[in-house]
Amino acid sequence: MSKLGNRPLVPLNIRDLSPYVAGKTIAEVKEEYDPPEISKLASNENRLGCSSHVQPQVVKAMQEIQDYPDPASGQLREVLADENNIDPENIIVGAGSESLIANLCRTFFLNNEEAVTADATFVGFFVQGNIRGISIKKIPVTDDYRYDLNAMADAISERTKMVYIANPNNPTGTYITRSEFEQFMRKVPSDVLVVMDEAYFEFAQDVSDYPHSLRYDFDNVITLRTFSKAYGLAGFRVGYGIASKKIITEMMKTKLTFEPTVAAQAAALAALGDPAFLKKTKDVVNEGKKRLYKFFEEHGVSYVSSISNSVMMVLPTEQAAIDFTQKMLEQGVILRRINAFGLPNCVRITIGRKKEMRHFERSFKNLIEAQELPSI
Amino acid sequence: MSKLGNRPLVPLNIRDLSPYVAGKTIAEVKEEYDPPEISKLASNENRLGCSSHVQPQVVKAMQEIQDYPDPASGQLREVLADENNIDPENIIVGAGSESLIANLCRTFFLNNEEAVTADATFVGFFVQGNIRGISIKKIPVTDDYRYDLNAMADAISERTKMVYIANPNNPTGTYITRSEFEQFMRKVPSDVLVVMDEAYFEFAQDVSDYPHSLRYDFDNVITLRTFSKAYGLAGFRVGYGIASKKIITEMMKTKLTFEPTVAAQAAALAALGDPAFLKKTKDVVNEGKKRLYKFFEEHGVSYVSSISNSVMMVLPTEQAAIDFTQKMLEQGVILRRINAFGLPNCVRITIGRKKEMRHFERSFKNLIEAQELPSI
Repeated sequence: MSKLGNRPLVPLNIRDLSPYVAGKTIAEVKEEYDPPEISKLASNENRLGCSSHVQPQVVKAMQEIQDYPDPASGQLREVLADENNIDPENIIVGAGSESLIANLCRTFFLNNEEAVTADATFVGFFVQGNIRGISIKKIPVTDDYRYDLNAMADAISERTKMVYIANPNNPTGTYITRSEFEQFMRKVPSDVLVVMDEAYFEFAQDVSDYPHSLRYDFDNVITLRTFSKAYGLAGFRVGYGIASKKIITEMMKTKLTFEPTVAAQAAALAALGDPAFLKKTKDVVNEGKKRLYKFFEEHGVSYVSSISNSVMMVLPTEQAAIDFTQKMLEQGVILRRINAFGLPNCVRITIGRKKEMRHFERSFKNLIEAQELPSI
Repeated sequence: MSKLGNRPLVPLNIRDLSPYVAGKTIAEVKEEYDPPEISKLASNENRLGCSSHVQPQVVKAMQEIQDYPDPASGQLREVLADENNIDPENIIVGAGSESLIANLCRTFFLNNEEAVTADATFVGFFVQGNIRGISIKKIPVTDDYRYDLNAMADAISERTKMVYIANPNNPTGTYITRSEFEQFMRKVPSDVLVVMDEAYFEFAQDVSDYPHSLRYDFDNVITLRTFSKAYGLAGFRVGYGIASKKIITEMMKTKLTFEPTVAAQAAALAALGDPAFLKKTKDVVNEGKKRLYKFFEEHGVSYVSSISNSVMMVLPTEQAAIDFTQKMLEQGVILRRINAFGLPNCVRITIGRKKEMRHFERSFKNLIEAQELPSI
């Protein structure tokens, strides 16, 4: 164990963490493989970019960039409150969902409390729970890669402070339905916080039995949303949480005072003012998913149907997933293995524009022709 | 106590936190008092703005703003490593000093460990220590508002994991000298981490007996620097920590994966490429301080000499400080009371351009003429 003098440098829960391993950047792929074309379909970013409203508003905000951001994100919270028909005091703004999840972990857990979630979900919750040093009960997903809500409800004990549900789930793209959510909430004690991470909300909201968590009135539900996905602002780090005032009041005490940045607040406001860009994004993702499903069916590929902006391929083994991802990378298609999310034999594909999806298909076919495709 | 069902919603250390109370913004002062001129001298921001190199570089970086930031801040760490003649692995980049202090608190403290610092120093350390739930021994500053390093060394116990020193100190502007630092370090056990927060380094570096902590080779010293002050990038939230690789390795495990933003990394790189702006900033601050000292001496005002970009006025009572700050605010001069920093009878004045310093003097003289100045 790493020590400082004669005692541990860090607590055990920190010692046992792994540092984040980044995927290859476009620049690295270019240098290493020099493919004629590069399509980054790894991180569920918006391949259309972001709204054209963003840049001029950020440039304007930069006139005062020497000054600290508004720590209350006043203007952004007001607009979000109006949009969602709630009060600004029901909203906290943070530096992306990860920052809000970190805030939840440091704010609400007593030392002996624990969390319940699925074994195949957003790695950010696992990481932040580990940093806080709590134990996390990870309930296996069902055979069709969905949350097993009955088993999760059964796993709630007197020590459980929080349940984490990504809906739609990342990386699977699956979702819990309205009736499943309602049934689950009847079983959850009122003193257990239920975090509904809706990072992919905008892609899911038109699905008829998708439960918008804001349409319910549970005092113990915390909804997380982000500008990193449908709004195309991942580089700016801005997301928000919505909950009862009692919960938001506690979270406001522990947020980093000046997050998110001046530029991020301006960018988020600009993005909210451009519903046409959001619609175009959703259209492109829906078309891209249809096209990919068809392609997979034609080629006998096992995949999971998704209401998000990504689709998960299921490969027979972890080694097949490693090989496939690598061979696609060499052709400039950057995909994401999701072993860290608990699914070592799966690969996640972000849905891009037609251009990127054709690049994916072409590269995939090259592997078939070269007989280099692992049996899938 | 706020409860969720039958048990505490949050731990005691979170329950007892106060939320951050922001000072008045320029817009609020304008609306409330409508003074002919507003000078924001409250938050030690750079009144010259930031380097003109910043905007074009940020606009360029925004072309890829839909993608996540480089989690390792690779390019920025390389440039900082070159500048400081160290390796990138000795550097961690974060969303401002507050984020780095939060990282230090969540990474290194075991549950029963404690910290030692002064009773009149940067409030951010108090806040982050409280969020982590550790106890902080706050050693009174000396009569001349300097760290009492002998008393601090004596306060180190077997439970002490960390000593926090802001040098120059915020809010006092005072500093510990080279020989004081060296003498102190001889007394500190090698298994106690010493955090040297050098947020105001650029203003202090030319003072002959100011100890650049990077010129020493202590494995247990962590140096914090920021782009929020001299570089004028507070709105972007970017700072960095420098330490042994062993320490940085642990901090990299617990940093928020994607901080700081794409725009912030681009802005910091641009700012580092414009030493002329930095020199101008330092010249303006040095001239402004000289002018203010002279003004205070002419008017019999008690102040503390500073090597930072702010000067602290000492008023006879807390009420005098409240009244003075309010009466200056009504004239458009926004100053900072520093009760949260442990000095309720003091007021901190950021050194601005000649324009803002003349506004300060004019407003101050108005109070004298109107006999509204509390006895100082």
